[in-house]
Amino acid sequence: MPHTIREIATALGAKAEGALDLAVTAASEPQAAGPDDLALAMDPKYADGIAKGQARAALLWPGADWQAMGLQAAIFAPRGRLAMAGLTRLLDAGPDIAPGVHPMAIVDPSARIGAGAAIGPFVVIGRDVVIGANARIASHVSIAEGARIGEDALILQGARICARVTIGNRFICQPGAVIGSDGFSFVTPEKSGVEEIRETLGTRDAITAQSWTRIHSLGAVTIGDDVEIGANVCIDRGTIRDTRIGSGTKLDNLVHIGHNVQIGRDCLLCGQVGIAGSSRIGDRVVMGGQCGVNDNIFVGDDVICGGATKIFTNAPAGRVLLGYPAVKMETHVEMQKALRRLPRLAARVAEIEKALPRPPSED
Amino acid sequence: MPHTIREIATALGAKAEGALDLAVTAASEPQAAGPDDLALAMDPKYADGIAKGQARAALLWPGADWQAMGLQAAIFAPRGRLAMAGLTRLLDAGPDIAPGVHPMAIVDPSARIGAGAAIGPFVVIGRDVVIGANARIASHVSIAEGARIGEDALILQGARICARVTIGNRFICQPGAVIGSDGFSFVTPEKSGVEEIRETLGTRDAITAQSWTRIHSLGAVTIGDDVEIGANVCIDRGTIRDTRIGSGTKLDNLVHIGHNVQIGRDCLLCGQVGIAGSSRIGDRVVMGGQCGVNDNIFVGDDVICGGATKIFTNAPAGRVLLGYPAVKMETHVEMQKALRRLPRLAARVAEIEKALPRPPSED
Amino acid sequence: MPHTIREIATALGAKAEGALDLAVTAASEPQAAGPDDLALAMDPKYADGIAKGQARAALLWPGADWQAMGLQAAIFAPRGRLAMAGLTRLLDAGPDIAPGVHPMAIVDPSARIGAGAAIGPFVVIGRDVVIGANARIASHVSIAEGARIGEDALILQGARICARVTIGNRFICQPGAVIGSDGFSFVTPEKSGVEEIRETLGTRDAITAQSWTRIHSLGAVTIGDDVEIGANVCIDRGTIRDTRIGSGTKLDNLVHIGHNVQIGRDCLLCGQVGIAGSSRIGDRVVMGGQCGVNDNIFVGDDVICGGATKIFTNAPAGRVLLGYPAVKMETHVEMQKALRRLPRLAARVAEIEKALPRPPSED
Repeated sequence: MPHTIREIATALGAKAEGALDLAVTAASEPQAAGPDDLALAMDPKYADGIAKGQARAALLWPGADWQAMGLQAAIFAPRGRLAMAGLTRLLDAGPDIAPGVHPMAIVDPSARIGAGAAIGPFVVIGRDVVIGANARIASHVSIAEGARIGEDALILQGARICARVTIGNRFICQPGAVIGSDGFSFVTPEKSGVEEIRETLGTRDAITAQSWTRIHSLGAVTIGDDVEIGANVCIDRGTIRDTRIGSGTKLDNLVHIGHNVQIGRDCLLCGQVGIAGSSRIGDRVVMGGQCGVNDNIFVGDDVICGGATKIFTNAPAGRVLLGYPAVKMETHVEMQKALRRLPRLAARVAEIEKALPRPPSED
Repeated sequence: MPHTIREIATALGAKAEGALDLAVTAASEPQAAGPDDLALAMDPKYADGIAKGQARAALLWPGADWQAMGLQAAIFAPRGRLAMAGLTRLLDAGPDIAPGVHPMAIVDPSARIGAGAAIGPFVVIGRDVVIGANARIASHVSIAEGARIGEDALILQGARICARVTIGNRFICQPGAVIGSDGFSFVTPEKSGVEEIRETLGTRDAITAQSWTRIHSLGAVTIGDDVEIGANVCIDRGTIRDTRIGSGTKLDNLVHIGHNVQIGRDCLLCGQVGIAGSSRIGDRVVMGGQCGVNDNIFVGDDVICGGATKIFTNAPAGRVLLGYPAVKMETHVEMQKALRRLPRLAARVAEIEKALPRPPSED
Repeated sequence: MPHTIREIATALGAKAEGALDLAVTAASEPQAAGPDDLALAMDPKYADGIAKGQARAALLWPGADWQAMGLQAAIFAPRGRLAMAGLTRLLDAGPDIAPGVHPMAIVDPSARIGAGAAIGPFVVIGRDVVIGANARIASHVSIAEGARIGEDALILQGARICARVTIGNRFICQPGAVIGSDGFSFVTPEKSGVEEIRETLGTRDAITAQSWTRIHSLGAVTIGDDVEIGANVCIDRGTIRDTRIGSGTKLDNLVHIGHNVQIGRDCLLCGQVGIAGSSRIGDRVVMGGQCGVNDNIFVGDDVICGGATKIFTNAPAGRVLLGYPAVKMETHVEMQKALRRLPRLAARVAEIEKALPRPPSED
């Protein structure tokens, strides 16, 4: 769908110059742009690409000399990535889901589906489910008994919303995510080896052969507003109380959230992060890919973790972490530097020992 | 469904006191309990919550003074988590799956489905599949040709049981799990770089550009009794023999089990653990989240691994491991302590070198 | 299906001796082989097993004395694993998918499906999809609008091919994989803590509470020929340009590929590897299980990474890496050796300090 430069600038709240009625149909990297594309060059380092492509209009950094670049129109983006958010939102047609309920969807008669919903083929919606207005639910999704989802949800192919899960407004769920699987909670008749080494940090008495008995999950999952869940994510239900994910939080693909976990508002958990059972994560926490949090840990507000950080102890608010086990990022950098020099250090210590007078023999 | 205190105590094999005919409908944390909830306070630290909530009955630690807490009845749990297992089992209604075969399920006429089965919509059951009595199979599940599953199975939404997989009794499978995907096994016409560095541990001769040829998986997966598989888990089939998972073993969400892997009885593998091809894991092994085991490794019985432990060499029975690469947990703690002091140690060595007489120059 | 020894030898391009018309129906480990199995013993260490089993024919190492083993026929494999590739391909019957389009599949009338296609039940194929000849598409798969897939595709249960994804010939996709989920790309109105610490590596000014705005993904995913994708893999679409995976590359289960990532030809990414957004991976790169690559990183051709290597900086072509953070494998081995000796080294330094004359007091 074509948009004029004026329309786009208005949507971005941005300044534009030149042929404001020029229409574009897509966004493109500068060198690959065709004549109907809006070239994206929000940094001077991308300016060269404009000449290589055929764009007539571009999204540029403030103050860029668009006429010298041979353009007919330009929009100026003081914060490029923020402009990208507005622009991509405008240009994203969204997935094909026909309005109404597909004849091959199975919706329990007790379910209440809001006005304007689009429900795809092979969808199953269970007893007493409530879904807000304007939901878009793609093929193969299942929403089990008693689940409640707010307005403007977009739930993509094959996602699994399990029984009694509660979700706020503007929910986005990528394909294959599972929300509300049973918690991983087992107990042995006598004290287990795991319970023992939590106390001793490593030593064990005689080992007893025991089997695991299941603790069932009676809780569910509660998710706030404006949450996005990545592809093939797994979020376990709580044992008694619900597992909780705060408003504005985003989970990337293949993230694992254990039972009873509480995650605050506006967090970003990148790909393959795992949070073990009963841990609590504050607000605005950011974790790079493959981070891990041990069970029953507390991570304070505004903590930021570099990729693959493994947290075994509580982390105070505002801390910047890296490493396995996690330490302050600065400490990690210093430790790694020292570690790389360690073989040389050991050699130096050996040299010193040779230079020193021998201690008298103990014989 | 309401249960009397007497009924619950009997089910738990536990002692109860007070109004044994009082009925409760759910379990709750003490401070959140309503008048029809059973409050859970198996440790004195939760006793305060009882007064804040409205519970009339509670599950308490042995010897607790329930009357002083204002309760009308109490059940006593000498091992709290074990009582939780019994209680949650009693209170778990399980998922909604209507009895019989849903008209929108496709069951091959050659499949044999045991008595009392409940099979949901959009399920596909292939040729010659055998499923034991009382199976509950939720929507969108596929069970491919020749698979055999024991009695009392619970298989949740969208799980994939692939061809010729064999599974014992009382199987529980969370949504989205894949059991029996093809192994990841490829070969190059000439020796590959990976084969080379396995011998040299790092140095390589001239690098040859080669492509990978697929080794197909002719084996399947064999799973014992009482096994539970987490959401979006992947278990690959074997190349010639079956990949095997022993009875009583539990796998958490997003665990990856490579081809030919043999896992013993009563193991617990937590979220996102990965076991590479052809490794063997003993009985009662416990791995924290995000652990990894290299291919062709042997891990002995009763090994316990802390979170994110990465195992590159065989681990003897009973060992408690941590770290990358895995070492004894005690060694890891000591190494990390020394590493944090390493920058200071390096400074001390530099001080010593300054204090020492200069070695004579070699000019 | 039975195959004669002659047929198999011809398919493998291998030499055979003995009763070439003897037929076998399956492959087996030597000790487990029945009389109609081909025993696999491509290394002398497996020779003992032949006597324990009942095989009449075997696949052996060159020069093996098959008659002394009591066999009636033998095929000789100079490179055992390569012979396994040919043999398993011959013996793999592949999944049951009935020819034609299943009556319970939904194929948009605008889709073009090549000749010889087999499409299973509960499959959904969207508007303007193009699928090449001889595609085999198992149950519950969804292929969204505008996707294009080459010839001879095998797409297994519940895989999700999202809108406008382009895939070459001979594509294999294991169950539950998601190709073309939205990228994980968010921006805050003002500079975020993550942007700040990328510059300072750890220190932060006053922390501002901010929410995340979504950058939509307008790009798709482009995949070459001969690519195989593992179970429950996730590949995100690009923001503007496509995420790309080169011909001949194989991804194992639960791999995560972020938005805009470019992966070269003939790579192997093992289980649970994660590549963060916008990183570029060269040709013939091999990564062991659970490796991670930070965002915006470049990994050169022929790089090999041991299991769980975490790459934070660009890696030159041909490098062999291990560790967190990644270093040369040799360096890692040396660093770990020194680290294990570090507590002892610290004690030695303390001894030296005791032996040295005290520096004069500064009072």
